[in-house]
Amino acid sequence: MIKALYCDRKSSTFHELHSVHAVKAKLQDPNVLLWIDLCDPNEEEIKHLATSFRLHPLAVEDALQEHQRPKIEEYQDFYFMVFYAVERGSKQNTIAFHEIDMFLNSHYLITVHKLPIAAFEEVEQRWTRNTKLLDAGIGILLYSFLDTVVDSYFPIIDTLVDEAEQIEDNLFERERPNRHLTIRLLSLRKEFLELRRIVTPQRDVLNTLTNRDNPLHENPQVDVYFRDIYDHITRLAETIDIYRDQLNSVMDTNLTIASNELNKVMRTMTAASIILMVDSLIAGIYGMNFDYMPELHFQWAYFVVLGFMGILTAILIAIFRTIHWL
Amino acid sequence: MIKALYCDRKSSTFHELHSVHAVKAKLQDPNVLLWIDLCDPNEEEIKHLATSFRLHPLAVEDALQEHQRPKIEEYQDFYFMVFYAVERGSKQNTIAFHEIDMFLNSHYLITVHKLPIAAFEEVEQRWTRNTKLLDAGIGILLYSFLDTVVDSYFPIIDTLVDEAEQIEDNLFERERPNRHLTIRLLSLRKEFLELRRIVTPQRDVLNTLTNRDNPLHENPQVDVYFRDIYDHITRLAETIDIYRDQLNSVMDTNLTIASNELNKVMRTMTAASIILMVDSLIAGIYGMNFDYMPELHFQWAYFVVLGFMGILTAILIAIFRTIHWL
Amino acid sequence: MIKALYCDRKSSTFHELHSVHAVKAKLQDPNVLLWIDLCDPNEEEIKHLATSFRLHPLAVEDALQEHQRPKIEEYQDFYFMVFYAVERGSKQNTIAFHEIDMFLNSHYLITVHKLPIAAFEEVEQRWTRNTKLLDAGIGILLYSFLDTVVDSYFPIIDTLVDEAEQIEDNLFERERPNRHLTIRLLSLRKEFLELRRIVTPQRDVLNTLTNRDNPLHENPQVDVYFRDIYDHITRLAETIDIYRDQLNSVMDTNLTIASNELNKVMRTMTAASIILMVDSLIAGIYGMNFDYMPELHFQWAYFVVLGFMGILTAILIAIFRTIHWL
Amino acid sequence: MIKALYCDRKSSTFHELHSVHAVKAKLQDPNVLLWIDLCDPNEEEIKHLATSFRLHPLAVEDALQEHQRPKIEEYQDFYFMVFYAVERGSKQNTIAFHEIDMFLNSHYLITVHKLPIAAFEEVEQRWTRNTKLLDAGIGILLYSFLDTVVDSYFPIIDTLVDEAEQIEDNLFERERPNRHLTIRLLSLRKEFLELRRIVTPQRDVLNTLTNRDNPLHENPQVDVYFRDIYDHITRLAETIDIYRDQLNSVMDTNLTIASNELNKVMRTMTAASIILMVDSLIAGIYGMNFDYMPELHFQWAYFVVLGFMGILTAILIAIFRTIHWL
Amino acid sequence: MIKALYCDRKSSTFHELHSVHAVKAKLQDPNVLLWIDLCDPNEEEIKHLATSFRLHPLAVEDALQEHQRPKIEEYQDFYFMVFYAVERGSKQNTIAFHEIDMFLNSHYLITVHKLPIAAFEEVEQRWTRNTKLLDAGIGILLYSFLDTVVDSYFPIIDTLVDEAEQIEDNLFERERPNRHLTIRLLSLRKEFLELRRIVTPQRDVLNTLTNRDNPLHENPQVDVYFRDIYDHITRLAETIDIYRDQLNSVMDTNLTIASNELNKVMRTMTAASIILMVDSLIAGIYGMNFDYMPELHFQWAYFVVLGFMGILTAILIAIFRTIHWL
Repeated sequence: MIKALYCDRKSSTFHELHSVHAVKAKLQDPNVLLWIDLCDPNEEEIKHLATSFRLHPLAVEDALQEHQRPKIEEYQDFYFMVFYAVERGSKQNTIAFHEIDMFLNSHYLITVHKLPIAAFEEVEQRWTRNTKLLDAGIGILLYSFLDTVVDSYFPIIDTLVDEAEQIEDNLFERERPNRHLTIRLLSLRKEFLELRRIVTPQRDVLNTLTNRDNPLHENPQVDVYFRDIYDHITRLAETIDIYRDQLNSVMDTNLTIASNELNKVMRTMTAASIILMVDSLIAGIYGMNFDYMPELHFQWAYFVVLGFMGILTAILIAIFRTIHWL
Repeated sequence: MIKALYCDRKSSTFHELHSVHAVKAKLQDPNVLLWIDLCDPNEEEIKHLATSFRLHPLAVEDALQEHQRPKIEEYQDFYFMVFYAVERGSKQNTIAFHEIDMFLNSHYLITVHKLPIAAFEEVEQRWTRNTKLLDAGIGILLYSFLDTVVDSYFPIIDTLVDEAEQIEDNLFERERPNRHLTIRLLSLRKEFLELRRIVTPQRDVLNTLTNRDNPLHENPQVDVYFRDIYDHITRLAETIDIYRDQLNSVMDTNLTIASNELNKVMRTMTAASIILMVDSLIAGIYGMNFDYMPELHFQWAYFVVLGFMGILTAILIAIFRTIHWL
Repeated sequence: MIKALYCDRKSSTFHELHSVHAVKAKLQDPNVLLWIDLCDPNEEEIKHLATSFRLHPLAVEDALQEHQRPKIEEYQDFYFMVFYAVERGSKQNTIAFHEIDMFLNSHYLITVHKLPIAAFEEVEQRWTRNTKLLDAGIGILLYSFLDTVVDSYFPIIDTLVDEAEQIEDNLFERERPNRHLTIRLLSLRKEFLELRRIVTPQRDVLNTLTNRDNPLHENPQVDVYFRDIYDHITRLAETIDIYRDQLNSVMDTNLTIASNELNKVMRTMTAASIILMVDSLIAGIYGMNFDYMPELHFQWAYFVVLGFMGILTAILIAIFRTIHWL
Repeated sequence: MIKALYCDRKSSTFHELHSVHAVKAKLQDPNVLLWIDLCDPNEEEIKHLATSFRLHPLAVEDALQEHQRPKIEEYQDFYFMVFYAVERGSKQNTIAFHEIDMFLNSHYLITVHKLPIAAFEEVEQRWTRNTKLLDAGIGILLYSFLDTVVDSYFPIIDTLVDEAEQIEDNLFERERPNRHLTIRLLSLRKEFLELRRIVTPQRDVLNTLTNRDNPLHENPQVDVYFRDIYDHITRLAETIDIYRDQLNSVMDTNLTIASNELNKVMRTMTAASIILMVDSLIAGIYGMNFDYMPELHFQWAYFVVLGFMGILTAILIAIFRTIHWL
Repeated sequence: MIKALYCDRKSSTFHELHSVHAVKAKLQDPNVLLWIDLCDPNEEEIKHLATSFRLHPLAVEDALQEHQRPKIEEYQDFYFMVFYAVERGSKQNTIAFHEIDMFLNSHYLITVHKLPIAAFEEVEQRWTRNTKLLDAGIGILLYSFLDTVVDSYFPIIDTLVDEAEQIEDNLFERERPNRHLTIRLLSLRKEFLELRRIVTPQRDVLNTLTNRDNPLHENPQVDVYFRDIYDHITRLAETIDIYRDQLNSVMDTNLTIASNELNKVMRTMTAASIILMVDSLIAGIYGMNFDYMPELHFQWAYFVVLGFMGILTAILIAIFRTIHWL
């Protein structure tokens, strides 16, 4: 699906284009800013566009393949950029990344993506409303675009952070470490890892965009806008790194607590076994069948032995209490 | 709540301003240094200020949002800065960070924050007292301000360091590793992590401020003052890193000690079990009901067997002592 | 085995050469691009070539020795390059690296390798088909070559990634951690390590090749092609690093789960031992042979004791259930 | 306590100064090199000096406060430097750091410290003896000073290294890992950490001093001397890093050995328990009181059962030996 | 022991010198390249040399002291270099490093070392044979020297690598982790650490030597030779880093396997204990001496109980098999 929108900078008006020919015509007009959005295009659509806009075959090939890394590449008369939007996945606790490939120069922005992305409507609104900054050229459209995409990371990361904090709280509230918690830690850590793999190169892309010698910046005042997004994404990257680090600590703590728990269990077991085995031994001794065992014939011997067992048990319990084994 | 203070550099006198109009008037006077402090302002107050001071909408938006990272950003005719003051939190062992957003150029400093910050009175006193350095311009106000804020970190970090040292001492004094200690280690480590997340970018901000080509420095002699704060914050950052590292070692030590303890417990248990089970087996054997068990009928057999058990126990104890299992 | 192919840039035609003399003759012609491929050459063949092409003895020596690291070295009138192709090894889960040594300047490319490499046919086809870009000189042959080689890494890494994901899934699906899994983790990690040892310096080589002042680039348009391979290999390197990191987490998780499992086993054992030993102790007591044990003579005592044992067992089980030991 | 020493470069003679006025007088003479050493000065003494030498208040404040980090700071007409001397602490296995604050320019060196430092006598001797290099100015005094201080680190680090090696040897000599060793490891690691915190910034200070554009270097030949100290301190830093790394390995090894030991103990216990419980079960069976238990009445049954127990025990021992559990 | 060899570049001949006076005479001749090798010199010999060659006292002092780190230092008219040769130590599995101190400029190379080094004969042969490159000056002697020394590292590292691989194979072949393996891992890791401490700064030295503005390079063609050694030592450094990393993984794997083994042992023990204790409890019950225990008097009760025990045992074994505890 193709959607084309253009802005006539002279009249500060926005129009939609309905035919590819119209797009081609507008391409010549230096006062026109063009945004073409391709959602799940077939190969032919892209190839057609590539000839109209004289896009380099290598960039077009990258746009057709999935799983590019976030990047910005300068070609002779355009930039090729890869960026990722993020959404909550359909399964619980998963993140879905949407690759967006972009071709742009000072006259047009072409966005290519597989699935419809909700944030794009907001981008359109922000661009068409913000007529004050139109002399900033394509930069302001790119800003609206990237800012909207980057802001969509915050709720996702907040959810992960909440979950990380909750796992920690579980440990604080003396809940016993268990397999579920451990597995959840592992998968959380992986989600932070995946986010980092996307966010870090995206930060590099934004860093490139904030450089003043960037030809996309017709107007120096647009610089501060890109710096603003760069600042947001840096915050994202730092949050991710902090929680990855903290999750490692939680994992270590988890192991140490498990080890302490085991110590406690084993001390309990050792103490209980010794007490019970000692008592059993006494009972065993008086269960022997020797002919001559004088104690057996004392009248109160049985009760004396029972009492002795009780006292011995009490003493052993006291000892194990003192050394904190019980 | 707005509080406005200005310094007339000609007369070296300080005055408070009581109306916004007065602020606007003073803004024109090149001999005036202006400090406007907004505590928990509503949006309108900030917007009003933004128009008077022609602040860039992006910076204003950042000031309205919470959770910016410490930074300094240059705009056309002012700097936007985010810094954090720190206070002991209300709950035990917590740290409260107070975000302070600043707009400043060589004529004014605007500070925006949510809650009243105790340190601000000290800043005012330091600024108004230090009339000798007034020709250093706004820089000396900024120095008083940042120096006071950075110094407020030291007692907080000292408390954390004390706690870290105490946990270590606990380990040295042969206290048994336990869950409480482990959990405390985890939360301490997190507090150091949070401090680091704030302190490291603040150090970068101060590094920027010590650069000589900084336009805030009307007077080169103010450089050494910022370098001094930079030096303080570097010390903070190093202390944080050292204790984070050391807490990791403590965690490892904790685990290793738990493991050694478990070894000791299990050796005790194994030795005790074997001794008691061997004795029980002997008792069990002479508790069997075979018709023909000649030992049963020897007169002193019972005592011989008891003695044998005693000797066996003594021998086993001696053996386990030798191999340090008891 | 020597195979020589040359391209006449004037006529845009490709020919095979059959004698070494022909090669020497073509070497003088500035319109000829020459590709000489030596598969498992003997020392004499290389020495011969070295004299014809005036190759530096150090580079020749490197080409004769195995186990060079990926590199590009500039000599007076040629470059010496080492690159590795990768193939699935003959044993399960192994990777076979094939070292390829290259001598190249703007007129020729000499490739030297021990074993026949399947990808080379594809390289030949890509080169001979792509006549449009012939004015890009030897660069386009080198591009076809390196691109084909780098692309051969993707299926290999995908297999390793699949395996890593599967090990993770095993942990998620509550399978018990075992020795096999642990060993597989170790060997997977080593494979990622080996790949990294090859891929990282190869990325550096490609980085060198994308520098514009590279004399191999007769034509600036060939730059974007090398940048494209550089981008691919960067993706490889990042994938490797992410999975190495994640495998460490899996290893930690593995250990923590093992520790949790042990806790569970030991709690079960402690609970079961205590219950059974208590019951045994009671049985032992009534197995004693004292003359005067009044309970023994009560008619229903036996059943009362059995019932008592049952109730005690039930109570202990309930207690251990409550504290989650059973 | 103040001690002042000056060198008359014209006559190459050294003299002690006894009054502050004399110090002030000498300060004007361009041919004089002045060393003023203040041991535990009161605030007034420093303030007095500060006015005489026109020291910047910030540097003076730093000198009055303890716990500065090693640094060198350039002021308008002097350098402020912080360096640490090291001595064995009074308690066993502790290190005492002595902070030395220095003010210096090409005419004077002022050293300020809390406690008397033994090494200072050596510094004085080295300076006054080395008259050949007097035209190198204050640099040669600074060199004598820093070289002596840095050399004092070597015996301290050697002691720590010896201890680290000994802990390792303990592990090699099959000594059982224990709490004492673990605690010692932790405290050793901390001592290396503390040394590193001091040594690393001191290396940076020395790096600054080896820069040729350093105004303290009146004479280029003094460069090689500072490079020599820089080389020594780099060696210190490397030794520290290597042993910190190795101590981590020792800690890991310690844990793994503890874990292996536990395995051995538990295997022993399992094997012993099974054997003894099996024998006990047999004894228990023949201790039952059933009316009809034909075995009980066979004449040699008792010995047969005893023999059976013995054989069973032997078989079980053999089995457990085979699988290395005993 | 002093050995002096000189090369007359005019006649391309090599001669040995037998007196110190001869050395001094040759020193004036610009066409002479001089190699002086001092094995275990006394202080006087070095001092004598120092005066003849006007060596700087700091460099001479470094040459007299042991345990310098690998480095290259520029003095006014010579370079001072420290490099290490490596040999298999006398004890098994140890490495012996031989420090070689060098003074060199474009006319001479002086090598100082404690013990005779076997590789030096090869250096001499390579230098005297390679007359073609004599116009490369002292550089070619230095190349022969360093190349021979660096190549001597490969067999040493190969041995360590073999051992590391073998330890890994042990783990793969299901051998039980034990103390010996763990200790060997620790010492292997230390050997890699020691090698790294030597190899990394040596790489830096070689990097310095490959810089083109190096005055030792009279002839640009000698550059590629040093680059070749640099390449070799980089390979060494990478191999060391990879195996250090991998040994860490092996250590972790070792711990995890030990933990899994323990789980298996404890599961076995728990299962066996429960079965045997249940059977013992039954035997104990029928060993009680109550007057009225009707089962005791049933004729086949004994066999019924034995059978019941057998069935119960079988059931329990089946259950424990199902949950993989046996």
